Amino acid sequence: MALEVLASPKPGNVDRCHDYAETRLEHFIVSTLAARPALETAEARRAGLGSLIEAAVGATACHAGGNTHFGAFILLVPLVYGGTLEGAIEAVRASTVEDAVAFYRSFALTQVRVAAEDELDVNDPDAADALRARGMTLLDVMAHSAPRDMVAREWTNGFALCHRAADALLADSDPRTAVRRTFLNLLAAEPDTFIAKKHGPALAEETRRRAAAVILGKTALESLDAWCIGRGVNPGSLADITIGAIFLALCRGWAWDS
Amino acid sequence: MALEVLASPKPGNVDRCHDYAETRLEHFIVSTLAARPALETAEARRAGLGSLIEAAVGATACHAGGNTHFGAFILLVPLVYGGTLEGAIEAVRASTVEDAVAFYRSFALTQVRVAAEDELDVNDPDAADALRARGMTLLDVMAHSAPRDMVAREWTNGFALCHRAADALLADSDPRTAVRRTFLNLLAAEPDTFIAKKHGPALAEETRRRAAAVILGKTALESLDAWCIGRGVNPGSLADITIGAIFLALCRGWAWDS
Repeated sequence: MALEVLASPKPGNVDRCHDYAETRLEHFIVSTLAARPALETAEARRAGLGSLIEAAVGATACHAGGNTHFGAFILLVPLVYGGTLEGAIEAVRASTVEDAVAFYRSFALTQVRVAAEDELDVNDPDAADALRARGMTLLDVMAHSAPRDMVAREWTNGFALCHRAADALLADSDPRTAVRRTFLNLLAAEPDTFIAKKHGPALAEETRRRAAAVILGKTALESLDAWCIGRGVNPGSLADITIGAIFLALCRGWAWDS
Repeated sequence: MALEVLASPKPGNVDRCHDYAETRLEHFIVSTLAARPALETAEARRAGLGSLIEAAVGATACHAGGNTHFGAFILLVPLVYGGTLEGAIEAVRASTVEDAVAFYRSFALTQVRVAAEDELDVNDPDAADALRARGMTLLDVMAHSAPRDMVAREWTNGFALCHRAADALLADSDPRTAVRRTFLNLLAAEPDTFIAKKHGPALAEETRRRAAAVILGKTALESLDAWCIGRGVNPGSLADITIGAIFLALCRGWAWDS
Protein backbone atom coordinates (compact mmCIF):
# COMPACT_ATOMS: atom_id res chain seq x y z
CA MET A 1 0.00 0.00 0.00
CA ALA A 2 2.87 2.37 0.81
CA LEU A 3 4.80 1.55 -2.36
CA GLU A 4 1.68 2.09 -4.47
CA VAL A 5 0.76 5.50 -3.08
CA LEU A 6 4.36 6.76 -3.07
CA ALA A 7 4.93 5.86 -6.73
CA SER A 8 4.70 8.93 -8.93
CA PRO A 9 3.61 10.40 -11.19
CA LYS A 10 0.36 8.43 -11.34
CA PRO A 11 -2.14 10.34 -13.49
CA GLY A 12 -5.23 11.34 -11.54
CA ASN A 13 -4.32 9.62 -8.27
CA VAL A 14 -2.77 10.71 -4.98
CA ASP A 15 0.99 10.36 -5.10
CA ARG A 16 4.11 12.18 -3.91
CA CYS A 17 3.21 15.17 -6.08
CA HIS A 18 -0.59 15.24 -5.72
CA ASP A 19 -3.22 15.40 -3.01
CA TYR A 20 -6.97 15.57 -3.41
CA ALA A 21 -8.62 18.42 -1.54
CA GLU A 22 -10.05 16.13 1.14
CA THR A 23 -7.78 13.09 0.87
CA ARG A 24 -4.05 13.62 1.10
CA LEU A 25 -0.95 11.48 0.96
CA GLU A 26 -0.88 11.57 4.76
CA HIS A 27 -4.30 9.91 4.88
CA PHE A 28 -3.16 7.09 2.61
CA ILE A 29 -0.02 6.48 4.66
CA VAL A 30 -1.87 6.63 7.99
CA SER A 31 -4.40 4.20 6.51
CA THR A 32 -1.50 1.92 5.53
CA LEU A 33 -0.17 2.00 9.10
CA ALA A 34 -3.62 1.45 10.60
CA ALA A 35 -4.33 -1.59 8.42
CA ARG A 36 -1.54 -3.69 9.87
CA PRO A 37 -3.39 -5.47 12.72
CA ALA A 38 -6.25 -6.51 10.41
CA LEU A 39 -3.79 -7.76 7.79
CA GLU A 40 -1.84 -9.67 10.45
CA THR A 41 -5.12 -11.29 11.52
CA ALA A 42 -5.70 -12.19 7.86
CA GLU A 43 -2.22 -13.70 7.57
CA ALA A 44 -2.90 -15.79 10.68
CA ARG A 45 -6.35 -16.74 9.29
CA ARG A 46 -7.95 -15.88 12.63
CA ALA A 47 -11.17 -14.57 11.04
CA GLY A 48 -13.19 -14.92 7.86
CA LEU A 49 -12.66 -12.78 4.75
CA GLY A 50 -15.75 -10.63 5.33
CA SER A 51 -14.92 -9.83 8.96
CA LEU A 52 -11.33 -9.17 7.97
CA ILE A 53 -12.34 -6.63 5.32
CA GLU A 54 -14.72 -5.07 7.85
CA ALA A 55 -11.89 -4.88 10.43
CA ALA A 56 -9.46 -3.34 7.96
CA VAL A 57 -11.98 -0.75 6.75
CA GLY A 58 -12.94 0.07 10.33
CA ALA A 59 -9.33 0.46 11.45
CA THR A 60 -8.46 2.78 8.56
CA ALA A 61 -11.47 5.01 9.20
CA CYS A 62 -9.32 6.57 11.96
CA HIS A 63 -8.52 9.58 9.77
CA ALA A 64 -10.70 12.31 8.28
CA GLY A 65 -9.63 11.65 4.68
CA GLY A 66 -12.59 9.48 3.69
CA ASN A 67 -12.25 6.16 1.90
CA THR A 68 -8.61 5.41 1.19
CA HIS A 69 -8.22 1.63 0.83
CA PHE A 70 -11.64 -0.06 0.72
CA GLY A 71 -11.05 -1.55 -2.73
CA ALA A 72 -7.49 -2.47 -1.84
CA PHE A 73 -8.70 -4.55 1.11
CA ILE A 74 -11.12 -6.47 -1.13
CA LEU A 75 -7.98 -7.73 -2.88
CA LEU A 76 -5.36 -7.69 -0.14
CA VAL A 77 -7.41 -9.56 2.45
CA PRO A 78 -7.82 -12.76 0.39
CA LEU A 79 -4.28 -12.45 -0.99
CA VAL A 80 -2.74 -12.08 2.48
CA TYR A 81 -5.07 -14.77 3.88
CA GLY A 82 -4.16 -17.14 1.07
CA GLY A 83 -0.46 -16.31 1.10
CA THR A 84 -0.18 -17.17 -2.61
CA LEU A 85 -2.32 -16.67 -5.70
CA GLU A 86 -3.53 -20.26 -5.43
CA GLY A 87 -4.25 -19.85 -1.72
CA ALA A 88 -6.25 -16.68 -2.41
CA ILE A 89 -8.31 -18.39 -5.13
CA GLU A 90 -9.07 -21.20 -2.70
CA ALA A 91 -9.97 -18.71 0.05
CA VAL A 92 -12.49 -16.78 -2.05
CA ARG A 93 -14.08 -20.05 -3.21
CA ALA A 94 -14.56 -21.01 0.44
CA SER A 95 -16.18 -17.67 1.37
CA THR A 96 -19.55 -17.88 3.13
CA VAL A 97 -22.85 -16.06 3.47
CA GLU A 98 -21.65 -14.64 6.79
CA ASP A 99 -18.61 -13.24 4.96
CA ALA A 100 -21.06 -11.47 2.66
CA VAL A 101 -23.05 -10.09 5.60
CA ALA A 102 -19.87 -8.80 7.29
CA PHE A 103 -18.71 -7.25 4.02
CA TYR A 104 -22.01 -5.39 3.72
CA ARG A 105 -21.55 -4.09 7.27
CA SER A 106 -18.21 -2.59 6.27
CA PHE A 107 -19.90 -0.12 3.90
CA ALA A 108 -21.37 1.66 6.91
CA LEU A 109 -17.81 2.39 8.12
CA THR A 110 -16.74 4.57 5.20
CA GLN A 111 -18.01 6.42 2.14
CA VAL A 112 -17.67 4.23 -0.93
CA ARG A 113 -19.10 4.89 -4.34
CA VAL A 114 -21.81 2.29 -5.01
CA ALA A 115 -24.17 1.98 -7.95
CA ALA A 116 -27.48 3.24 -6.53
CA GLU A 117 -29.68 1.17 -8.82
CA ASP A 118 -28.22 -2.05 -7.45
CA GLU A 119 -30.90 -4.47 -6.25
CA LEU A 120 -28.70 -5.45 -3.29
CA ASP A 121 -28.40 -1.97 -1.83
CA VAL A 122 -25.54 -1.77 0.66
CA ASN A 123 -27.41 0.95 2.52
CA ASP A 124 -30.53 -1.18 2.95
CA PRO A 125 -30.82 -2.44 6.55
CA ASP A 126 -32.56 -5.54 5.20
CA ALA A 127 -29.64 -6.42 2.90
CA ALA A 128 -28.28 -8.96 5.40
CA ASP A 129 -31.62 -10.77 5.44
CA ALA A 130 -31.71 -10.70 1.63
CA LEU A 131 -28.19 -12.17 1.43
CA ARG A 132 -29.12 -14.95 3.87
CA ALA A 133 -32.42 -15.65 2.13
CA ARG A 134 -30.68 -16.00 -1.22
CA GLY A 135 -27.73 -17.90 0.31
CA MET A 136 -25.28 -15.52 -1.31
CA THR A 137 -21.65 -16.00 -0.32
CA LEU A 138 -19.12 -13.17 -0.55
CA LEU A 139 -17.89 -14.72 -3.80
CA ASP A 140 -21.48 -14.56 -5.10
CA VAL A 141 -21.63 -10.89 -4.11
CA MET A 142 -18.41 -10.22 -5.98
CA ALA A 143 -19.67 -12.13 -9.02
CA HIS A 144 -22.83 -10.00 -8.87
CA SER A 145 -20.68 -6.81 -8.97
CA ALA A 146 -18.06 -8.13 -11.37
CA PRO A 147 -19.55 -6.73 -14.60
CA ARG A 148 -19.35 -3.17 -13.26
CA ASP A 149 -16.42 -3.45 -10.81
CA MET A 150 -12.96 -4.66 -11.81
CA VAL A 151 -11.92 -5.17 -8.18
CA ALA A 152 -14.83 -7.52 -7.50
CA ARG A 153 -14.08 -9.15 -10.87
CA GLU A 154 -10.64 -10.20 -9.59
CA TRP A 155 -12.38 -12.58 -7.16
CA THR A 156 -14.06 -14.31 -10.08
CA ASN A 157 -11.16 -14.66 -12.53
CA GLY A 158 -8.28 -15.86 -10.38
CA PHE A 159 -7.02 -12.32 -9.65
CA ALA A 160 -6.08 -12.05 -13.30
CA LEU A 161 -5.07 -8.38 -13.41
CA CYS A 162 -3.18 -8.53 -10.11
CA HIS A 163 -1.33 -11.56 -11.38
CA ARG A 164 -0.49 -9.96 -14.73
CA ALA A 165 0.69 -6.74 -13.10
CA ALA A 166 2.80 -8.72 -10.60
CA ASP A 167 4.51 -10.39 -13.56
CA ALA A 168 5.17 -6.92 -14.99
CA LEU A 169 6.71 -5.70 -11.72
CA LEU A 170 8.96 -8.74 -11.53
CA ALA A 171 10.03 -8.37 -15.18
CA ASP A 172 10.75 -4.63 -14.92
CA SER A 173 14.46 -3.79 -14.98
CA ASP A 174 14.14 -0.74 -12.68
CA PRO A 175 12.36 -1.43 -9.37
CA ARG A 176 12.45 2.28 -8.45
CA THR A 177 10.06 3.19 -11.26
CA ALA A 178 8.37 -0.17 -11.86
CA VAL A 179 5.20 0.67 -9.92
CA ARG A 180 4.41 3.82 -11.86
CA ARG A 181 5.17 2.05 -15.16
CA THR A 182 2.98 -0.93 -14.25
CA PHE A 183 0.18 1.42 -13.22
CA LEU A 184 0.40 3.33 -16.52
CA ASN A 185 0.34 0.09 -18.49
CA LEU A 186 -2.79 -1.03 -16.63
CA LEU A 187 -4.36 2.37 -17.29
CA ALA A 188 -3.65 2.04 -21.00
CA ALA A 189 -5.08 -1.48 -21.16
CA GLU A 190 -8.15 -1.50 -18.90
CA PRO A 191 -10.99 1.01 -18.48
CA ASP A 192 -11.09 1.83 -14.76
CA THR A 193 -14.49 0.92 -13.31
CA PHE A 194 -14.20 3.51 -10.53
CA ILE A 195 -14.05 6.19 -13.23
CA ALA A 196 -16.96 4.48 -15.01
CA LYS A 197 -19.12 4.51 -11.85
CA LYS A 198 -18.39 8.19 -11.23
CA HIS A 199 -18.40 9.55 -14.79
CA GLY A 200 -19.77 6.80 -17.03
CA PRO A 201 -18.05 4.19 -19.19
CA ALA A 202 -17.23 6.60 -22.04
CA LEU A 203 -14.91 8.66 -19.88
CA ALA A 204 -13.28 5.50 -18.49
CA GLU A 205 -12.58 4.38 -22.06
CA GLU A 206 -11.32 7.85 -23.03
CA THR A 207 -8.92 7.76 -20.06
CA ARG A 208 -7.65 4.38 -21.25
CA ARG A 209 -7.09 5.72 -24.79
CA ARG A 210 -5.25 8.77 -23.48
CA ALA A 211 -2.99 6.57 -21.34
CA ALA A 212 -2.26 4.40 -24.38
CA ALA A 213 -1.28 7.58 -26.27
CA VAL A 214 1.20 8.40 -23.49
CA ILE A 215 2.81 4.98 -23.83
CA LEU A 216 3.04 5.48 -27.60
CA GLY A 217 4.78 8.81 -26.99
CA LYS A 218 1.94 10.77 -28.60
CA THR A 219 1.00 12.63 -25.39
CA ALA A 220 3.09 13.76 -22.43
CA LEU A 221 2.38 12.07 -19.11
CA GLU A 222 2.01 15.55 -17.58
CA SER A 223 -0.85 16.46 -19.93
CA LEU A 224 -2.69 13.23 -19.11
CA ASP A 225 -2.25 14.03 -15.43
CA ALA A 226 -3.53 17.60 -15.89
CA TRP A 227 -6.48 16.30 -17.92
CA CYS A 228 -7.38 13.76 -15.19
CA ILE A 229 -7.18 16.39 -12.45
CA GLY A 230 -9.20 18.90 -14.47
CA ARG A 231 -11.97 16.36 -15.06
CA GLY A 232 -11.95 14.84 -11.58
CA VAL A 233 -10.91 11.53 -13.12
CA ASN A 234 -9.14 9.26 -10.65
CA PRO A 235 -8.40 5.66 -11.56
CA GLY A 236 -8.92 4.33 -8.05
CA SER A 237 -9.71 0.73 -8.99
CA LEU A 238 -6.46 0.36 -10.93
CA ALA A 239 -4.64 1.69 -7.86
CA ASP A 240 -6.28 -1.14 -5.87
CA ILE A 241 -5.22 -3.66 -8.53
CA THR A 242 -1.68 -2.27 -8.33
CA ILE A 243 -1.63 -2.84 -4.56
CA GLY A 244 -2.67 -6.47 -5.06
CA ALA A 245 0.03 -6.82 -7.72
CA ILE A 246 2.74 -5.39 -5.45
CA PHE A 247 1.76 -7.86 -2.72
CA LEU A 248 1.93 -10.82 -5.11
CA ALA A 249 5.27 -9.60 -6.48
CA LEU A 250 6.73 -9.19 -2.97
CA CYS A 251 5.58 -12.75 -2.12
CA ARG A 252 7.49 -13.93 -5.17
CA GLY A 253 10.65 -12.16 -4.01
CA TRP A 254 10.37 -8.85 -5.83
CA ALA A 255 13.37 -6.72 -4.79
CA TRP A 256 11.60 -3.33 -4.68
CA ASP A 257 14.57 -1.90 -2.84
CA SER A 258 17.41 -2.87 -5.16
CA MET B 1 7.29 9.20 12.02
CA ALA B 2 5.09 9.31 8.92
CA LEU B 3 3.88 12.85 9.57
CA GLU B 4 7.47 14.05 10.06
CA VAL B 5 8.90 12.57 6.88
CA LEU B 6 5.91 13.61 4.74
CA ALA B 7 6.07 17.25 5.86
CA SER B 8 7.68 19.39 3.19
CA PRO B 9 9.67 21.31 2.30
CA LYS B 10 12.17 20.49 5.05
CA PRO B 11 15.56 21.94 4.08
CA GLY B 12 18.22 19.24 3.72
CA ASN B 13 16.06 16.30 4.77
CA VAL B 14 14.09 13.59 2.98
CA ASP B 15 10.52 14.74 2.36
CA ARG B 16 7.83 14.52 -0.31
CA CYS B 17 10.04 16.46 -2.72
CA HIS B 18 13.49 15.07 -1.86
CA ASP B 19 15.29 11.75 -1.63
CA TYR B 20 18.91 11.11 -0.79
CA ALA B 21 20.74 8.96 -3.32
CA GLU B 22 20.76 5.91 -1.04
CA THR B 23 17.90 6.69 1.32
CA ARG B 24 14.53 7.52 -0.17
CA LEU B 25 11.10 8.43 1.14
CA GLU B 26 10.08 4.80 0.61
CA HIS B 27 12.77 3.68 3.07
CA PHE B 28 11.53 6.09 5.74
CA ILE B 29 7.92 4.96 5.28
CA VAL B 30 8.82 1.26 5.26
CA SER B 31 10.87 1.88 8.41
CA THR B 32 7.80 3.55 9.97
CA LEU B 33 5.70 0.49 9.15
CA ALA B 34 8.35 -1.93 10.40
CA ALA B 35 8.73 -0.13 13.74
CA ARG B 36 5.19 -0.81 14.88
CA PRO B 37 5.67 -4.11 16.75
CA ALA B 38 8.63 -2.73 18.74
CA LEU B 39 6.68 0.43 19.61
CA GLU B 40 3.67 -1.67 20.64
CA THR B 41 5.99 -3.65 22.93
CA ALA B 42 7.20 -0.32 24.34
CA GLU B 43 3.64 0.86 24.93
CA ALA B 44 2.90 -2.38 26.78
CA ARG B 45 6.19 -2.05 28.74
CA ARG B 46 7.05 -5.65 27.95
CA ALA B 47 10.82 -4.96 27.68
CA GLY B 48 13.40 -2.47 28.88
CA LEU B 49 14.30 0.72 27.02
CA GLY B 50 17.61 -0.61 25.69
CA SER B 51 16.13 -3.83 24.32
CA LEU B 52 13.23 -1.87 22.86
CA ILE B 53 15.55 0.49 20.97
CA GLU B 54 17.52 -2.55 19.80
CA ALA B 55 14.30 -4.24 18.62
CA ALA B 56 13.11 -1.13 16.77
CA VAL B 57 16.47 -0.59 15.07
CA GLY B 58 16.67 -4.28 14.16
CA ALA B 59 13.14 -4.33 12.73
CA THR B 60 13.72 -1.25 10.59
CA ALA B 61 16.96 -2.62 9.15
CA CYS B 62 14.68 -4.62 6.81
CA HIS B 63 15.33 -2.19 3.94
CA ALA B 64 18.47 -1.26 2.03
CA GLY B 65 18.23 2.47 2.78
CA GLY B 66 20.64 2.52 5.73
CA ASN B 67 19.86 4.23 9.03
CA THR B 68 16.47 5.87 8.89
CA HIS B 69 15.16 6.21 12.46
CA PHE B 70 17.89 5.34 14.98
CA GLY B 71 17.80 8.75 16.62
CA ALA B 72 14.03 8.84 16.49
CA PHE B 73 13.83 5.60 18.49
CA ILE B 74 16.11 7.03 21.19
CA LEU B 75 13.30 9.53 21.80
CA LEU B 76 10.18 7.61 20.79
CA VAL B 77 10.90 4.49 22.83
CA PRO B 78 10.93 6.25 26.23
CA LEU B 79 8.08 8.57 25.17
CA VAL B 80 5.88 5.66 24.06
CA TYR B 81 6.94 3.59 27.08
CA GLY B 82 6.17 6.47 29.43
CA GLY B 83 2.95 7.48 27.68
CA THR B 84 3.39 11.09 28.84
CA LEU B 85 6.30 13.49 29.24
CA GLU B 86 6.37 12.77 32.98
CA GLY B 87 6.21 9.01 32.36
CA ALA B 88 9.12 9.23 29.91
CA ILE B 89 11.24 11.24 32.36
CA GLU B 90 10.55 8.58 34.99
CA ALA B 91 11.37 5.78 32.53
CA VAL B 92 14.78 7.18 31.55
CA ARG B 93 15.65 7.74 35.23
CA ALA B 94 14.89 4.06 35.87
CA SER B 95 17.09 2.85 32.98
CA THR B 96 19.68 0.22 33.83
CA VAL B 97 23.17 -0.95 32.91
CA GLU B 98 21.59 -3.76 30.87
CA ASP B 99 19.63 -1.12 28.95
CA ALA B 100 22.98 0.48 28.12
CA VAL B 101 24.45 -2.85 27.00
CA ALA B 102 21.41 -3.55 24.76
CA PHE B 103 21.62 -0.04 23.34
CA TYR B 104 25.26 -0.60 22.42
CA ARG B 105 24.29 -3.84 20.66
CA SER B 106 21.86 -1.90 18.47
CA PHE B 107 24.70 -0.01 16.79
CA ALA B 108 25.78 -3.24 15.14
CA LEU B 109 22.38 -3.40 13.39
CA THR B 110 22.75 -0.23 11.34
CA GLN B 111 25.19 2.43 10.22
CA VAL B 112 25.07 5.39 12.58
CA ARG B 113 27.45 8.32 12.66
CA VAL B 114 29.39 8.11 15.92
CA ALA B 115 32.23 10.28 17.13
CA ALA B 116 35.28 8.04 16.58
CA GLU B 117 37.32 9.59 19.39
CA ASP B 118 34.75 8.52 21.96
CA GLU B 119 36.27 6.59 24.85
CA LEU B 120 33.24 4.30 24.93
CA ASP B 121 33.53 3.09 21.35
CA VAL B 122 30.30 1.51 20.17
CA ASN B 123 32.29 -0.71 17.81
CA ASP B 124 34.49 -2.03 20.61
CA PRO B 125 33.49 -5.62 21.49
CA ASP B 126 34.62 -4.93 25.06
CA ALA B 127 32.25 -1.96 25.43
CA ALA B 128 29.66 -4.05 27.25
CA ASP B 129 32.27 -5.06 29.83
CA ALA B 130 33.31 -1.42 30.20
CA LEU B 131 29.71 -0.33 30.74
CA ARG B 132 29.18 -3.02 33.38
CA ALA B 133 32.50 -2.27 35.09
CA ARG B 134 31.63 1.41 35.37
CA GLY B 135 27.99 0.68 36.28
CA MET B 136 26.79 3.00 33.52
CA THR B 137 23.03 3.03 32.94
CA LEU B 138 21.53 4.03 29.61
CA LEU B 139 20.79 7.45 31.14
CA ASP B 140 24.50 7.73 32.04
CA VAL B 141 25.40 6.86 28.43
CA MET B 142 23.08 9.56 27.16
CA ALA B 143 24.50 12.08 29.66
CA HIS B 144 27.97 11.14 28.40
CA SER B 145 26.88 11.92 24.80
CA ALA B 146 24.70 14.91 25.65
CA PRO B 147 27.29 17.66 25.03
CA ARG B 148 27.74 16.54 21.42
CA ASP B 149 24.32 14.98 20.68
CA MET B 150 21.04 16.85 21.07
CA VAL B 151 19.00 13.62 20.91
CA ALA B 152 20.89 12.09 23.84
CA ARG B 153 20.60 15.48 25.57
CA GLU B 154 16.79 15.16 25.56
CA TRP B 155 17.14 12.27 28.04
CA THR B 156 18.97 14.56 30.45
CA ASN B 157 16.81 17.69 30.30
CA GLY B 158 13.24 16.36 30.48
CA PHE B 159 12.86 16.13 26.69
CA ALA B 160 13.00 19.93 26.58
CA LEU B 161 13.11 20.44 22.81
CA CYS B 162 10.49 17.76 22.11
CA HIS B 163 8.25 19.39 24.69
CA ARG B 164 8.77 22.90 23.30
CA ALA B 165 8.15 21.77 19.72
CA ALA B 166 5.00 19.87 20.82
CA ASP B 167 3.71 23.14 22.31
CA ALA B 168 4.42 24.81 18.95
CA LEU B 169 2.50 22.13 17.04
CA LEU B 170 -0.48 22.46 19.37
CA ALA B 171 -0.43 26.27 19.13
CA ASP B 172 -0.14 26.35 15.32
CA SER B 173 -3.32 27.45 13.57
CA ASP B 174 -2.78 25.25 10.49
CA PRO B 175 -2.16 21.55 11.23
CA ARG B 176 -1.46 20.84 7.54
CA THR B 177 1.73 22.91 7.60
CA ALA B 178 2.52 22.90 11.32
CA VAL B 179 5.19 20.20 11.12
CA ARG B 180 7.29 21.96 8.50
CA ARG B 181 6.95 25.27 10.36
CA THR B 182 7.91 23.68 13.68
CA PHE B 183 10.90 22.01 12.02
CA LEU B 184 12.06 25.29 10.48
CA ASN B 185 11.73 27.08 13.82
CA LEU B 186 13.85 24.38 15.49
CA LEU B 187 16.40 24.69 12.69
CA ALA B 188 16.60 28.45 13.22
CA ALA B 189 17.01 28.08 16.98
CA GLU B 190 19.27 25.08 17.56
CA PRO B 191 22.50 24.00 15.83
CA ASP B 192 21.85 20.41 14.68
CA THR B 193 24.39 18.05 16.25
CA PHE B 194 24.10 15.55 13.41
CA ILE B 195 25.40 18.27 11.08
CA ALA B 196 28.09 19.11 13.63
CA LYS B 197 29.27 15.48 13.83
CA LYS B 198 29.46 15.21 10.06
CA HIS B 199 30.76 18.66 9.11
CA GLY B 200 31.85 20.35 12.34
CA PRO B 201 30.08 22.82 14.62
CA ALA B 202 30.72 25.87 12.41
CA LEU B 203 28.57 24.51 9.60
CA ALA B 204 25.86 23.52 12.09
CA GLU B 205 25.80 27.09 13.37
CA GLU B 206 25.83 28.49 9.83
CA THR B 207 22.82 26.31 8.98
CA ARG B 208 21.02 27.67 12.02
CA ARG B 209 21.78 31.28 10.98
CA ARG B 210 20.58 30.63 7.44
CA ALA B 211 17.32 29.12 8.75
CA ALA B 212 16.84 32.17 10.96
CA ALA B 213 17.29 34.36 7.87
CA VAL B 214 14.52 32.38 6.14
CA ILE B 215 12.16 33.05 9.06
CA LEU B 216 13.04 36.75 8.92
CA GLY B 217 12.18 36.74 5.20
CA LYS B 218 15.78 37.56 4.22
CA THR B 219 16.32 34.28 2.33
CA ALA B 220 13.93 32.05 0.40
CA LEU B 221 13.28 28.61 1.86
CA GLU B 222 14.18 27.15 -1.54
CA SER B 223 17.68 28.64 -1.44
CA LEU B 224 18.30 27.25 2.03
CA ASP B 225 17.16 23.88 0.77
CA ALA B 226 19.45 24.08 -2.28
CA TRP B 227 22.36 25.18 -0.08
CA CYS B 228 21.80 22.23 2.30
CA ILE B 229 21.63 19.73 -0.54
CA GLY B 230 24.71 21.18 -2.24
CA ARG B 231 26.73 20.93 0.96
CA GLY B 232 25.41 17.52 2.05
CA VAL B 233 23.93 19.20 5.13
CA ASN B 234 21.03 17.23 6.60
CA PRO B 235 19.58 18.20 9.96
CA GLY B 236 18.82 14.63 11.00
CA SER B 237 18.80 15.20 14.76
CA LEU B 238 16.18 17.95 14.50
CA ALA B 239 14.06 15.54 12.42
CA ASP B 240 14.31 13.10 15.36
CA ILE B 241 13.31 15.85 17.80
CA THR B 242 10.36 16.69 15.52
CA ILE B 243 9.19 13.05 15.66
CA GLY B 244 9.28 13.13 19.46
CA ALA B 245 7.36 16.41 19.40
CA ILE B 246 4.67 15.02 17.09
CA PHE B 247 4.19 12.04 19.41
CA LEU B 248 3.82 14.28 22.47
CA ALA B 249 1.43 16.57 20.59
CA LEU B 250 -0.70 13.61 19.46
CA CYS B 251 -0.85 12.35 23.06
CA ARG B 252 -2.16 15.78 24.04
CA GLY B 253 -4.90 15.57 21.40
CA TRP B 254 -3.27 17.38 18.49
CA ALA B 255 -5.73 17.26 15.56
CA TRP B 256 -3.16 16.78 12.74
CA ASP B 257 -6.00 15.87 10.42
CA SER B 258 -8.31 18.87 10.86
